[in-house]
Amino acid sequence: MTVLVVGSIALDSVETPFGRAENVLGGSAVFFAASASLLTQVQMVGVVGSDYPVDQLEVLAERGVDLTGIERAEGESFRWRGRYRHDLNTAETLETRLGVFSHFRPKIPEAFRDAPFVFLGNIDPRLQLDVLQQVHKPKLVACDTMNFWIESRRSDLLELLEHVDLITLNDAEARQLTEEANLVKAARWIQSHGPKTVIIKKGEHGALMFGPTSVFFTPAFPLESVFDPTGAGDAFAGGFIGYLARCGTVNDINMRRAVVYGSAMGSFAVERFSITRFLEIDESEIAARVLDFHRLVSVEQEIPA
Amino acid sequence: MTVLVVGSIALDSVETPFGRAENVLGGSAVFFAASASLLTQVQMVGVVGSDYPVDQLEVLAERGVDLTGIERAEGESFRWRGRYRHDLNTAETLETRLGVFSHFRPKIPEAFRDAPFVFLGNIDPRLQLDVLQQVHKPKLVACDTMNFWIESRRSDLLELLEHVDLITLNDAEARQLTEEANLVKAARWIQSHGPKTVIIKKGEHGALMFGPTSVFFTPAFPLESVFDPTGAGDAFAGGFIGYLARCGTVNDINMRRAVVYGSAMGSFAVERFSITRFLEIDESEIAARVLDFHRLVSVEQEIPA
Repeated sequence: MTVLVVGSIALDSVETPFGRAENVLGGSAVFFAASASLLTQVQMVGVVGSDYPVDQLEVLAERGVDLTGIERAEGESFRWRGRYRHDLNTAETLETRLGVFSHFRPKIPEAFRDAPFVFLGNIDPRLQLDVLQQVHKPKLVACDTMNFWIESRRSDLLELLEHVDLITLNDAEARQLTEEANLVKAARWIQSHGPKTVIIKKGEHGALMFGPTSVFFTPAFPLESVFDPTGAGDAFAGGFIGYLARCGTVNDINMRRAVVYGSAMGSFAVERFSITRFLEIDESEIAARVLDFHRLVSVEQEIPA
Repeated sequence: MTVLVVGSIALDSVETPFGRAENVLGGSAVFFAASASLLTQVQMVGVVGSDYPVDQLEVLAERGVDLTGIERAEGESFRWRGRYRHDLNTAETLETRLGVFSHFRPKIPEAFRDAPFVFLGNIDPRLQLDVLQQVHKPKLVACDTMNFWIESRRSDLLELLEHVDLITLNDAEARQLTEEANLVKAARWIQSHGPKTVIIKKGEHGALMFGPTSVFFTPAFPLESVFDPTGAGDAFAGGFIGYLARCGTVNDINMRRAVVYGSAMGSFAVERFSITRFLEIDESEIAARVLDFHRLVSVEQEIPA
């Protein structure tokens, strides 16, 4: 089944202890689509400025991503410049230039409005609500958010929560939104405000999914070299929703497996700058990584080194 | 099979956001024994001062812990006073009084020297080496350590590593010992210096076991209320070694299951002050918690709320 993603399309400049990249493809919609398109059909909505290297997005079109929902506006594209220090856990934002993104009003093409799976990437919750008014009864609506919206758009965000089935957010954001230090309590608080399912992303410490009737955990893959954490959260969401969309049916077992797919995609994202790694891998590498995840927590199997 | 533990026997005074406890049973050997004795026979070696409420240790004797290796010395017992702030991840040490512990030289009773499983709790690596000279060919020797010894007794610690099969240490200590930020590389470094198996404890983020041929991960149990983290690491070690000793055979599958038992015991430890929780639980509660851990990572089962 098809997934509609609405989010940012950016040019990232990133510095890590292992190297730097200038003006490479980035943004929540791009990372999501690069990841999800390995599992299912993706429709993408976002805005780019007149300076955007749209030809570089062709690699996504080749993967079957429908780019007809990308609006081209006069002006500069959204740019983010960030740096990771040695521990790689926290991005230090050096510069954010919203450019055309500051006037973005998502327009969902008629052909996208029946998408059964919808992912509202990390944008203004007011715009996320706007998107929901344009789509027709999706099977599952998921959203992401960030500290900036929790601070500046709290009431809009709370309104959004009433209309989504699932939210992904990181542990610091969950604590900030709920004012609960304990993540179990934080998740329960969020569930009581709307979404039946809450996925708390803990970066290198894995992800916890609180569903209506169960809790599921998956670790982050213990990688020997983490190159650039940018986009890992959106790649996670892409793997998660992409897998669910491929299954077609939303139930506890599929959701659990989807978390593993999300974690696998997050682990690929961090191995290279930008979406590079997703252009290298195929179904068989994904399957192998998913198997590695199962082995990592299995009490029944030996794993050859 | 029997486990011999050598470590500290302390009186802890702890303050958490949820309450405070004064001069309660603590120390690595006490937490280890309280945990391991629920799974197997334990022999304990340590020292207490003339002020120690030894009658309170009787609860361990009732569980079958052999206390005849506890030396009583003239002077004050080892006391630790600490505080946890809201996030509960890091203990702030307010006061440490070594007392009789500063002159402790472990003397392993003749009857303990054939113990097939040996756990060297977090004490001076010189003393940990002394213990190894007194025991006869155990099946498995495991040790713990801490930042203080890594800084002040590095060469002794490196010598110790050559003589142990397994080490448990937390993520910060692993990074400090190896000067590697990446935990996979840190574990490989430690393995190349002796122990075939390295268990890195990440507190609320779970534990990673790097074995000779495989990596295994278990999360920490997502508890709604964490009351007092003191002793969780030693309770983990007690559950881990206790389970292995109960199995009798050390192999990859048993080690994996042992990590789950360790995590289960760690999760009990943090639910009350001191060793209180271990005096409340029995085999069936442990089995239920272990099952909860399996459900938490299983992609096959639904978990009733």
